[in-house]
Order: sequence, then C-alpha cells, then structure tokens
Amino acid sequence: MAGEHFEMLLDEDKPKEACGVFGIYAPGQDVARITYYGLYALQHRGQESAGIAVGDGEKITCRKGMGLVGEVFTEDTLRMLKGHIALGHVRYSTAAENTIENAQPHNFYYKQGMIALGHNGNLTNYAELRRKLADSGAVFQSTADSELMINLIVRAGTEDLASGILKTMEQLEGSYSLILITEKKMFGIRDPHGMRPLCLGRLGDGYILASESCALDTIGAEFIRDVKPGEVVMIDEDGVTALQPHRDCKRALCVFEFVYLARPDSVIDGLSVQQARYALGKELAREYPLDGDMVIPVPDSGTSSAFAYAMERGLPFREGLMKNRYVGRTFIRPVQVTRDLGVRLKLNPIREMIFGKRVIMVDDSIVRGTTSGKLVQMIREAGAKEVHLLVSSPPVTHSCYYGIDTSKNGELIAASHCIEEIREHIGADSLGYLSRSGLHAALAPFNPDILCDACFCGDYPIR
Amino acid sequence: MAGEHFEMLLDEDKPKEACGVFGIYAPGQDVARITYYGLYALQHRGQESAGIAVGDGEKITCRKGMGLVGEVFTEDTLRMLKGHIALGHVRYSTAAENTIENAQPHNFYYKQGMIALGHNGNLTNYAELRRKLADSGAVFQSTADSELMINLIVRAGTEDLASGILKTMEQLEGSYSLILITEKKMFGIRDPHGMRPLCLGRLGDGYILASESCALDTIGAEFIRDVKPGEVVMIDEDGVTALQPHRDCKRALCVFEFVYLARPDSVIDGLSVQQARYALGKELAREYPLDGDMVIPVPDSGTSSAFAYAMERGLPFREGLMKNRYVGRTFIRPVQVTRDLGVRLKLNPIREMIFGKRVIMVDDSIVRGTTSGKLVQMIREAGAKEVHLLVSSPPVTHSCYYGIDTSKNGELIAASHCIEEIREHIGADSLGYLSRSGLHAALAPFNPDILCDACFCGDYPIR
Amino acid sequence: MAGEHFEMLLDEDKPKEACGVFGIYAPGQDVARITYYGLYALQHRGQESAGIAVGDGEKITCRKGMGLVGEVFTEDTLRMLKGHIALGHVRYSTAAENTIENAQPHNFYYKQGMIALGHNGNLTNYAELRRKLADSGAVFQSTADSELMINLIVRAGTEDLASGILKTMEQLEGSYSLILITEKKMFGIRDPHGMRPLCLGRLGDGYILASESCALDTIGAEFIRDVKPGEVVMIDEDGVTALQPHRDCKRALCVFEFVYLARPDSVIDGLSVQQARYALGKELAREYPLDGDMVIPVPDSGTSSAFAYAMERGLPFREGLMKNRYVGRTFIRPVQVTRDLGVRLKLNPIREMIFGKRVIMVDDSIVRGTTSGKLVQMIREAGAKEVHLLVSSPPVTHSCYYGIDTSKNGELIAASHCIEEIREHIGADSLGYLSRSGLHAALAPFNPDILCDACFCGDYPIR
Amino acid sequence: MAGEHFEMLLDEDKPKEACGVFGIYAPGQDVARITYYGLYALQHRGQESAGIAVGDGEKITCRKGMGLVGEVFTEDTLRMLKGHIALGHVRYSTAAENTIENAQPHNFYYKQGMIALGHNGNLTNYAELRRKLADSGAVFQSTADSELMINLIVRAGTEDLASGILKTMEQLEGSYSLILITEKKMFGIRDPHGMRPLCLGRLGDGYILASESCALDTIGAEFIRDVKPGEVVMIDEDGVTALQPHRDCKRALCVFEFVYLARPDSVIDGLSVQQARYALGKELAREYPLDGDMVIPVPDSGTSSAFAYAMERGLPFREGLMKNRYVGRTFIRPVQVTRDLGVRLKLNPIREMIFGKRVIMVDDSIVRGTTSGKLVQMIREAGAKEVHLLVSSPPVTHSCYYGIDTSKNGELIAASHCIEEIREHIGADSLGYLSRSGLHAALAPFNPDILCDACFCGDYPIR
Repeated sequence: MAGEHFEMLLDEDKPKEACGVFGIYAPGQDVARITYYGLYALQHRGQESAGIAVGDGEKITCRKGMGLVGEVFTEDTLRMLKGHIALGHVRYSTAAENTIENAQPHNFYYKQGMIALGHNGNLTNYAELRRKLADSGAVFQSTADSELMINLIVRAGTEDLASGILKTMEQLEGSYSLILITEKKMFGIRDPHGMRPLCLGRLGDGYILASESCALDTIGAEFIRDVKPGEVVMIDEDGVTALQPHRDCKRALCVFEFVYLARPDSVIDGLSVQQARYALGKELAREYPLDGDMVIPVPDSGTSSAFAYAMERGLPFREGLMKNRYVGRTFIRPVQVTRDLGVRLKLNPIREMIFGKRVIMVDDSIVRGTTSGKLVQMIREAGAKEVHLLVSSPPVTHSCYYGIDTSKNGELIAASHCIEEIREHIGADSLGYLSRSGLHAALAPFNPDILCDACFCGDYPIR
Repeated sequence: MAGEHFEMLLDEDKPKEACGVFGIYAPGQDVARITYYGLYALQHRGQESAGIAVGDGEKITCRKGMGLVGEVFTEDTLRMLKGHIALGHVRYSTAAENTIENAQPHNFYYKQGMIALGHNGNLTNYAELRRKLADSGAVFQSTADSELMINLIVRAGTEDLASGILKTMEQLEGSYSLILITEKKMFGIRDPHGMRPLCLGRLGDGYILASESCALDTIGAEFIRDVKPGEVVMIDEDGVTALQPHRDCKRALCVFEFVYLARPDSVIDGLSVQQARYALGKELAREYPLDGDMVIPVPDSGTSSAFAYAMERGLPFREGLMKNRYVGRTFIRPVQVTRDLGVRLKLNPIREMIFGKRVIMVDDSIVRGTTSGKLVQMIREAGAKEVHLLVSSPPVTHSCYYGIDTSKNGELIAASHCIEEIREHIGADSLGYLSRSGLHAALAPFNPDILCDACFCGDYPIR
Repeated sequence: MAGEHFEMLLDEDKPKEACGVFGIYAPGQDVARITYYGLYALQHRGQESAGIAVGDGEKITCRKGMGLVGEVFTEDTLRMLKGHIALGHVRYSTAAENTIENAQPHNFYYKQGMIALGHNGNLTNYAELRRKLADSGAVFQSTADSELMINLIVRAGTEDLASGILKTMEQLEGSYSLILITEKKMFGIRDPHGMRPLCLGRLGDGYILASESCALDTIGAEFIRDVKPGEVVMIDEDGVTALQPHRDCKRALCVFEFVYLARPDSVIDGLSVQQARYALGKELAREYPLDGDMVIPVPDSGTSSAFAYAMERGLPFREGLMKNRYVGRTFIRPVQVTRDLGVRLKLNPIREMIFGKRVIMVDDSIVRGTTSGKLVQMIREAGAKEVHLLVSSPPVTHSCYYGIDTSKNGELIAASHCIEEIREHIGADSLGYLSRSGLHAALAPFNPDILCDACFCGDYPIR
Repeated sequence: MAGEHFEMLLDEDKPKEACGVFGIYAPGQDVARITYYGLYALQHRGQESAGIAVGDGEKITCRKGMGLVGEVFTEDTLRMLKGHIALGHVRYSTAAENTIENAQPHNFYYKQGMIALGHNGNLTNYAELRRKLADSGAVFQSTADSELMINLIVRAGTEDLASGILKTMEQLEGSYSLILITEKKMFGIRDPHGMRPLCLGRLGDGYILASESCALDTIGAEFIRDVKPGEVVMIDEDGVTALQPHRDCKRALCVFEFVYLARPDSVIDGLSVQQARYALGKELAREYPLDGDMVIPVPDSGTSSAFAYAMERGLPFREGLMKNRYVGRTFIRPVQVTRDLGVRLKLNPIREMIFGKRVIMVDDSIVRGTTSGKLVQMIREAGAKEVHLLVSSPPVTHSCYYGIDTSKNGELIAASHCIEEIREHIGADSLGYLSRSGLHAALAPFNPDILCDACFCGDYPIR
C-alpha cells in the first residue's frame, strides 16, 4: 500500500486509513499540551483533521480543524483548553465525508452535562442503526460513526454512562477503538474483536489512552497494557476501573497495522511492529530466494522488510529510490507538464546505484498496481538490467469493511487478475507476493490466530 | 550535523545551511510551474523562504514568501507568473536576517530594464564591498548578498551585462553559485573555487540551471554538465554561451555537500552523493572495526554510512530510532512539559530492537554535541548494554565562512575538547570520528583535492 | 443605543442585537450568489457569523464561518453551493455563545433527508424545552435556539414537515422569524406576536424571504407582503402556500426595529423605518422645544431624528461629530494609552462648528449611559457653551427577553435612576427623553398597538 | 468624485487618491501604538497598504502589508515595534503599481545607518530623476517616489542629512508631503507649493506630524501649526527646528482636499473642511436656486453641501439614498446577476421618501459620469417626478499630475462634453455645476489664491 500511497496522493484518491485517538486524565498537568504532543506521535494515522476536547470538571471545551496537528493548533488555542481531562483525535475519513462536521472529537450536550468522543474504526451496521435512531426522531449533523454512537449511548437511557456504553456495545458491529470523556471522567473502549489497537499508560499520577504505544513513549509515559478486546476502562479520581462485558469473540486485530499502518516503534498486543516487518522480509526471502545485484526498498514502509530480505539473502541492500519528504497536502498537481512527473517528484531513482544492475525491489503491499508499474519503468529507465518486485504481504483480494480503505473490489488488481497478469501489467521481470501461510509463519510468535486477514482471503470475522 | 538538526529546530537555533537555485530558459513551456517542481526537489537546501521570478521579454514578475514552496505558491500565483524565463530560490539565511526583505529572488529595475538574482553561498568580503558602495551613495533594503551583487553588476558600468558580471566577479570573495535573469536572458555563475554546486541540463528545447542534479531528474530534464568553477554561462535565443574568466584558482567544493547537505540522488562534480556516503561508512569500518550486536543510524542523513559500516563489518543493521516526519516549522515547542520531550518527539528508540544489545550508532557529523548526548542516553534507557558512537566525518574544529553555519568557534565542541572529553560529555562507551585521511581516501575516486575541508583543519581556500 | 454602540465595541461588551435571515426559492438562478448579496443588505443585523445553505433537490450543502459576509465567502465557496433553494443567515449572538457551533444555518440529517434552519429571535422557554428533549435522549451540539427547534419539528413525528412545524409552534414561546429549507422546499415562519420582521418578495419566477425589505431592493426583487404573525408560508414548485395556525395573539413588533435596529430604507409591517425616525424627531421637538445654536446628531442612527428635530424647530442642523468608519472588529483596543482615546477614535467633534455654541445633541436611545457622558464631555471640551441631550425614545427601564440585548436590568441606567440623576451623571445642561405617549403619537399612522415596548414599561406581551 | 467612488470600487477601477502620513517623536511613549491609532484617523486617505517603521536610536524596524490598518497590524506586530520615533503610512497607489514593494514606509540602509520615508504626493519629474540615477548605476526595487527620494537624499553626498534633504528639494518637482525618520531623528517636509497638507502637533513632551489635523484630535494631541510650504522641520532631542529653503513659490493647495478628500473634522492651512463644504453648498444655492420638494445628498461626501444647499434654499433635506457600509474590498462583484445590482448594493433609494417628489440630488463632484447616470435612473424608478443633479464643484476638465487620479483626460466626461451633453447622458432633468468663481467666492475666507484648481481650468502651478 505504501507504493500506492504517493500515487493516490497525487491523484487525490487518498488512502482512507485509520484514525488516531489519544486521551489523558491527569489533574494538575497541562493535558491539552500533552495531547498535542501525543497527536504528533499519531499523525501518521490521519492527516485530514485534528481536534482536542478538554474537560475541567464543569464543562468540555473543544477546538478542531482541517489539516495537520501543527496547522490546527497554536499556543493560543492550547491556552484556551484548560482542564484535567483531554481527548485528542487525528482523522482519515473512512465512511464519512471529508468536512469539518465530521472532524473529531464530537462534542455534545446531553441531559447530564457534556460528552466528547473520538473514534478509530468503522461500524458495519451504521446505516441500520442510524435509520432506527432517525425513525425515533433523532437528527444528525454529520455522517460520522461517533455522532451515532453518542446518540446510542445517551439514549441507552440508564443514569450511569458506563452502563449506557455497555448496552450500546451490544448493538455495535464492526471495529471501534474509542475514547470518551465527560467533564469528569475518561472511558477507553475497544471492540470485542480487538480490530483496532488501544493501549493504556501512566504519566506521573495520571493515565493515558492511545492508539499506539509510540504516543506513550513520545510524551514520556509508561506503557501499562493494551486495552483488551471488548473491554471498557473507566478512569477517574478512583484510578482505572476495568469493565469487561464478557462477550466471547473471535479476535481479529487488523494485519495491516503490522504490514503498513502502525509506526515501527509501536508494540501492539505484544508484537513489535518493526520486528514483525523484519520477520515478513525474512520469510519473503525463504519463499523467493532470488539472485540479484542489490535489494532496494520502496520507501518508507517497504524499507524494513526489504532490509530483512537482503540480510537473509546475503545481498547488498541499497537505497535506490530517493523520497522527497516535502511533497504534501498543499502540493499543486502537475497537470500541464508530463504525467510521469507525478511519480518522479515523490521518488527519484539513484542512477549511479542502479545502472547495469539486477535489481530486487521490495514493497509492503500492492493495492491497485498503478504505481508499482511506474516505479518498475523508472528503474528500468535508470539502467537496471533486471527488475524483480517482491511484496511482503499476500495479494489483496477482498475489500475491508473495518476502517481500512483497500479500495472497492473492482479496483483491487489482485481481485481480478492472477499473479502472472499482474506481473505483465507492472512490467517486472518477476513478481512474488508473500504467501498467506508465510505471513502467518512470520507472525507466529504473535499467534496469528488473533489477526484479521480478511483482505487476503475474504474470511471476515463479522458479517 | 543531522544529529544536531532536530535539536536546533526545537531550540529555534536553526542550522543556517545552503540555499537552492533553479533557473529555466524555455520559450513555450510553463516555466513558473516547472520551477515550482524544481524547487520542490531542492527544498532540503532551504525552508525559510521561497520565490520565483519570471521574465517574459518585457518585464520580470516576482512572487515570494516565507515558508515552504508548497505554502508560498498556489495555482493563482503560478498563473500570474507568465513568461519564458524563470528563476526560483529556496533560502536558508546565512549571514543575513530572517525577514521577507531577504527572501530571494531579489528583483530590481536598473537603467536597461529589470534584473532578478538568486544566490547560494556567502561573500566573505560583503562588509567591505557594501561599505564602498554605501560611501558612493548606494542604499540597501536588505542585508542579502544578492542585493549587493546586483548593485555591483549594475555599477560595473558596462553596457553589456555579461561584462558587468565578469568585472564584478573580480571583486567578489567567498562562495557563490548564482542564477541571474533579465527580461530576456538567463545567466548561471559559479565562483572560481567552485565552492557551491551548479549544474546545467536540457528540457526539450529549453535549458535548466540547478543547484543539484536531483532537480533535473525530478522535472524530467537531461543532465548536460556541471557549470565549471569561475564560469559564466549565458542562455538566450542563441542557446548556451560559456564565458570563462580564466582565473587560476584552487578548487574548493564544500565537503559537507557529500557528508550531509546534498540529496543522495544528486551527482556533484562527478561524484554521486549516495556513493560518497557509502564510501565514508566503509572507511569508518576500516578505521573502527568495532564489535557489537547491531549498527543503528541517526536518521536520515546518517543512514547511508551506517548501512555501509554494517555491511563492511558484517554486522546487523537495524533501524533503532524512529523519526517523526511531522515535526516541522509550526511545531509548538515543549516549554512547560519536560525538556527531554523535545528529543523524543523527533526520534524514538525502538526498545524491542535495542534491549540488552551492544549498539553501534552512526551519525554523519557532530557540531555542538548536545543532541548526541541525549540520543546516547535515550538508547541506554531503552536497555542497550553498550552504546558506541561513530561519526562518518572528522571533528568540526573550525567555523565555515562560505555559507554553512557550523556555528561559531566557541560552540563547536571539537574546537575546544579532545575526543575523550567529547566522549565523556556525550556519555558513549566509545567515540570515533573518521580521520581526515580516511575522508580523503574514501573520496579518492573523486579527487579530494578539489574539496574544501577547512572546517576540519582550518585550511581556508581564501582568506 | 447607537450612542452606546461604539463604546461597547471598544469594551468588547458587544451589543447582542437581532439576526438577519434571507431565503430564496428560484430554480435556474444562482441562488447562493443572490443570497450572498441579500446578506450584505442585512449585515447590520449581525456581524458575528455568516452562513449559506443550499438545497439542490437531493441534498443540502452548507458553508459558514465567523465574521462578515465578505470575509466568510469567496468565489470558490459560492461556486460550491449549487442548487435552487438557498438560506442565508447573519448572526449576533443572543442567548447562545459566540462559537462556530452556534453559527447558522444549522444543517441536519433527519429520517426523511436533510433540513437547514436560520433563526432571528429568542425563545423564552428554551431551557424548559431543551430539558424535556434531553430527558428523552436528545443530544445537542450547540446552545442555539435553531438546533432545538429542528429537534422539535423532527420529533413532532408527523410525516409531513409542515404539520411538524405547526405542532412545534404550539410549544414555542418568545420571538422567532425563521426560514427553513429542505432539499426541495422553503418555509418562512413568523411567531404569533410578530415580534421580528419577515417579508416575502418575488424575483423573476422565484420567491424571496427576508428579515427586511431592503434586502429585496438590493437584489432587485419586488416586495409582495410581510409574512403575517403566526403564519407559515411554504414555497415549492406549486408557488407560495400560506398556512395560518389561527392563534389569536396580541401583536408585538419590537419598537426598537424603528428606533435603532432596522435599516432606514426598509419598510416593516407597513411603516417606513426612515419615516418613523423622522416622526420621532418631530415629536421630540414638540415635547422639548429647546433653543440652541445648532442641533447635532450622534451618528449614524441618531441622524434622522436629529434632523427632523432641527427642521421642526427651525434650528441649524450641523454634523458636529465625525465618525471614523474604519474602526471595526479587528481593532486593537487602546489599553496602554489614555482611556478616552476609545471614544475619540470613533467620534471626533468638529471644533470649528461647535466652539462657543449652545449645542442640542440628539441620540436615538441610552442604555447604560457611559458613552453619552463621554460625548457630552468631549463636546464641552471642544468649546460648546451649553450641551443639551435629547433622546428620541423613552428611558429603557426593563430588559428584553425577545432577542435584543438591552443589558441586564442592573446595567440599565434608567432602571435605577431618575432623569435628573442621569442628567447629572452624563453632565448635560439638560436631558430629555421622548415620552411613551409621544412615541405612540409619532408612530400613530402605523397603529402603535401592534408594537412591543416592554423595554420602556415592563408590559411584556408574553410571560 | 464621491459619486463615482463606489462605481469604481465595483469596477475595480479604484480611485487613486492621496496617501496619509503620520510621525511621532516621543521618548518614553508607545510610539508604534499611537501611530496605529493615528493611521486609523487617516485611513480615508488610503486603503491599499499600511505600514509603520520605528526607530529606537540604533536601528529602524518596519512592518507593512496590503490592506487596512486593522488588517495589517496585530498586538504581536505592534509589540515588536519598540522605539521612540515612529513613522506610519497608509497608501493609495498614484503613479506606482499596486504591490507590496510599493507599500510604505520605505526602509533603507545607507552609509550612516538606517532611514525610512513615507510620502504623500506625486513627483512630476519622477521619470527624469530616476533615469539620471539609473544612469549613474542606481538600482530600484519599486516604482515608488519614496524610493527615488531616498536615493536622491543619500546621494546628495553631504554628511548632514538635513542638507541632503534641502539639496534634494531643489531637484524635486510636483507635490510631496514627507515624513522621514532615522534611528534618532524625525523630519517633516512639505513641497514649496504646499500642494498636500501636513501639520505639526504636540503630545505630552513629544511631537507629532500628520497629513490631517483629525489625526491629532484622535490621539489627543494638540495642534501647533501647519508645516509651511517649502519648509523642513527637524525633530530630535533639541525639539523642533525649522529649516526653510527660501524658495518663492506660488502656493497651490489641492482644492479637492476641501471638495472631497479630507475628513470634515480636519482643518487645513486654516480652513475647516466641514465649513468649506457648507460654504460650497450655500454658494451652489445662490447659483442654482431650484424649486423642488426635497434635497437629497449622495452619501457620504455629498452630504455637507447638500445640507447647506437645503438650508439656504429653505427646502426639506432628506436622506433619500441609504448607503451600505459593509461593501468593501473583499466584496465579490456581481458578474452573473444583473449589472445594476452593483449600484443598488451600495446605495438604495428610500422609495417612501421619494415617490412622487421633485428631487434635487447634490453630489460633490463628477469624474466620469457613469455612476451619476445610474443614480438618477434609480431615483426615477423609485417614483421621483423630477430629478435635478447639482454638483458642488466645477466640471473636472483636466487631469491632475500631483497625486489625485482624476482619470485620464479621455475619461473625464467634462473634458469632451458640454454641460447639456452630460445632462443628457446622465438623464437628469437639469444639471448644474458650481462655477469656478462660485468656488472661489465660497472659499474666500481662506484666500483662494493659495489653492490649486488646475483640474477645473488647466492652469497648472508647475509645468
């Protein structure tokens, strides 16, 4: 998917990935500012909008905007956000539209006060739940899951918010890692399948919830544990209370967190993302023991497995593609110049490395295949004698309904083409994907049974 | 210097590096847009301001602003810049102050029309030349070299601009790679020592000048050759005319272009930057054949030599430090939280990799040493048993006067401390710098005699 | 109140006035653009936020922001708003807080599609209605009346929106002039007392609803009639349908629309605002036939009645106070310089006019009295021999609950002081307010029985 | 010209009027902030750009930008401007282009330090002077008079800046009221004809220079006297020193300052602007003793003379045209709706006033005549029985070269058409311009010999 990433960027066909959530309960600390830094560490999970809501015991104040954390917040806005509980969110749109109304946290007044919610995931029965609520007179200002969930929780009608949350979880289907704050408390909620990550940490006397452990490291917090699938943790003046609504579910943590999504320095449900990527590259070497003059990665997410492949094969690893780190959201697309400019602006082959060589290029995944083809061509034009493409994950043959936009089935090149057809389309001398069994073998230390790999096999954990 | 980079960023003690220049003469092409993409490829050379001036045969129009290329230019501004000659500039302040008045290109009316100039370098006799001009009644609106140079060229008093340029070059001391445009012509100028890079390319029927060859690749132009030290190339309807003011000078290309400054996919005066970095890492391995469990780079600029070191030593290379690519200019500095947050926001150790291991960390350079110390400590805290620091360039003992701000002498840790003192300050188990002879050996294929390494030895090519 | 206006501005104790609404149903016309111009004509009714929602038969698209119409909308935003129905709103906060969440139109998804609403007025039973809804599980994202009203209308539970509106009106107390649009229809709604203005016009084949008739003039539309108190007009492909929920109510059009609020070129419920102001000035002359050397107005809203006073008295009218029209929202308040600067920045006496003269100054109203005192002092310092202050409306002794912030009772100078005390406080040689009977006499042609003047007498039309 | 004003605004054919300058020398006071308020009072003289330069004894710091004073400056920018001398400028482009390079103050380094200059006026020998300087090697970054003047002053080559100024004044032709500051001193300079106003005031122990006396009133300063034609005042620690370069010149204060340009509360060279406008209206009544039912002004600048006309004639004065004060620079022009919208958005007739009446409309001037025609038509459509147009200044038959853009000769309707033709073009029942002798008679108390009225007669004070 990394290979596709810049292509889509330029095509404004952006990848709809995950979101990032960060929460802190820490009386006496500058919670908004800590959340700001926590969101920086989670920025890779969403670059479309950013928001922070702060509870001070009496009310919730919220600021959010379109863009990166560093663009949305200034000293002034941070200063306005006073309190002892904070909830931060960075968003990549999944189902909902790309407007400020869908930016999170979503902040509401309800009968007992105020409530704010940040969500990572995708409800598969959203339409059905919303229809039911609308029929009973509810109105909505956005198409976001989080607005729906707040309506459900509040209407659960129990005096106790925790009970409302548990009752609501019985209705929800799909993936969700949530943080919810009131003026006084913080809740962390993870869906029964554990599809999206969520972990708990400690900072001084306070507590942190975050999508990935790298956010704990960044702010100097100590990792306590992952929130368990189906668990609700409530954090208030009495510390952390765990509420587990004993539902016996198949675990289904998204495999793409390890392949591409999460930051390499995070550890999710016990497995280091970086180590997982190395393992995938090593396994790839076992399945495809190619000979070549060098191994080059598609930066950045292909780097770890490319490197592991090279190590295992005893081949030279070379950074043969230079990535321009300044091409971002404000970039003006090249319409009037040549189309190929798009790829070259983002990645440039290092001719001196490649010329006359047999190149093995390693990428983490292929979704639609258009970018891979351009890269292969670019490397050939830089003088490579042979170009072999290896992919450190299996072919993506099925769409994801849980929050990762792997495009519609029709756009997934591997959904309708065999490997040889894809190879021909891409123009590589050879093409190899890691097998599903190889993927599982590589992640064995982690117990692959807790992973969802429906996008590789169509075996969805929930309807 | 890369190691110091983020430290300075957080301290707002920004590194004052080079600038990037890009010029195009191409009737019939959208020269402003091509320049925009060219500047994207040179953005690593300066992030403080960006500007584009366009000549259309009758006048020059200029737009510039503070910030990144993507922030300064919009479709609207590009559309306003019509013509057949363009000059672009990205700037890192060197001697001059950080204000819009110093942003380039500098655009002037003179007796024969208009003239715009973009500059990479630093004049060592700026103060003296400016005093002379001021005494004769000249006024200045900025403290930029480029404003001074335009005054000199115009006052050279010859009817022919090219002669004015040649006459002016006799007065200039220091480093300069310039692009100058009038309404009708483009000039590329490189100082007699060749201290800063400048190369020439072809795009269709048009010609390109650029600080680095990566800009040519990016826009799909063909590399022709480097502009020679002391050479003036004039580009107009008659094509390229080379004017060489036969001054016999010691060549002195800045060695830091290879160590840290230039983009790895560029080739400067015949040597690939990426290959140079590999060579430095390989030489480092010969000088310091350490044993350890892994080699980790300080990303990004330490990566190539760290990798080459690991290859040469047969040791595992590991990405042990995760870099947050979102920490940028708009970042709010952590003043109220712990100070150490600063480093961790930018680089996070991957504990699972490092724990219990003997780590060899490779950086490209050390300027003040403060960041290196924090990194060593961070890696120890992540559980490393030993931390050895190797640096792929010699100790920086002397300030640079030619456009690289290696800080004042007093701040250069190696100017006043021996290696053992620095090691102790940094807290590493061992510390090794590449020797000067090692540096030269590594760059032998390139002929190190053409390099300036005054910052390592004080042997300045010009007074 | 005009006299107080700039004072409050400088004190950031802004007057909370009315809002302005504008709606258009006009297939084939550029409804967003026409609404943009319509809002310009209503800008005096609210400068805090502006918004436009457009229905295209299938969905509603909405853009809003803080600030003036000209600041919120650009060509680009107007271009995005495609459709055949539009609703525009300019807002001055009344009960609700000053945040983007309270900016209107409020835009909602409900069971049958989308709905947007813009409101001018203030519900007096807001808290009670909201509590009821919250108890039944509703959540709110703002503290605006309009969000509450949409919830009520949608929950009225009838399949037919018009019926829902009529049912909801039975519950609402207070003032409201509303425009509501769906993807396909437009509704205009005026409270049974007719407290806020709302009129209907025609533009080509389309229809317009607007707070004031000046908006019809501005866009070249033809005035048809005022919407009647308690009336609901529905506009769709069948034209205008009037639904009147036969409630027999005391009419109570806010008298301040004539005194100060509305634009002089508007005609409300049959009376020209300009003519009403002239009549007030004329009546003032009958009640206070003062002798003086000149009559000067407090610009702008005191001008008409000052002029009529001068005419009736046969005295010279002089523009003795110069108003600075550039002091606006972005103005930096003078804290470090002298306090009096505040008044002088906004109004400057023309010394040459005033010196040695007996001055009769006419203002439209006095709320807190602080500014009046400063003006009298300023005019004295400019050399006036005598300064008499006449006010073209009665003393404001009671707070308004229907959307005009006449400050809290405690701040109303006339609530706790007799005329002589106020005169002394202000420092005028004499002070005269128009009597209530004089006000009624002046507005006789209009039938003063339909006016609400509770702020002058405490006789509130509704509890 | 006021009548044309909004027309041009909508046509983006903006009137190029005067500029405003403000200077303060006041150790111990917050000079930047006082200048900010002073510029607010002069904002009517220029709305295109604003700037403030501050000297602190050692250097000059300058901030400027496009737009209104309130848009360009924030608390932060004011706080950066520390010192004891300040120079402020608001600009309407005259000869030069509309870009930030032309925004003033212009700030320069010269041999003895720094110098900043703000200018109101227009040099008639600009091109010639610039050519001379360019021939001697000078370069320019703008097309502004002020950059040229600084070059001349600095090159005058005397050690003493005051002498340089006096020597430079011998070369300058045209109109100029200048304020110049160095790090330590302030200079006020007025051209020998006194074409543009400039006055001197006192604030505590400090001194003020300003284009108009209203700026002194606004900041609470005391008026001392006008700067004399041809005078240079130097203000430093020794107070005010007057340097008069005894040139015997015809005085030529621009008559349009009284007709339209200056603020009514200013007094220029001894005459109150407001009183002058009343006198013009009174004289107009003597020349055109029309009968009618009412007199209405074209607001705002026609108001004073319309009122005086009505008084003198004993006719009712009515505000028959309502002006929308919110139509400003960011306004989106009505291209897709009807063209007439343009006028109506800005001015709306009050039908109830006008219907069936014989209307005498008074404007201050007519330049091109297009707007007058639209207004007459609008008033007729509002039901007026007759529409007579009176203009309180003579026909503008000649272009101005001294800083007022009365359009090119070809566009001046009175340059090529007789009164009857203009009347027919405009569609009025009758049309009357004040005669030149009437203008002089009206301004007799002021001694009309010191006025320049070349735009009415072509009798230019300088070639």
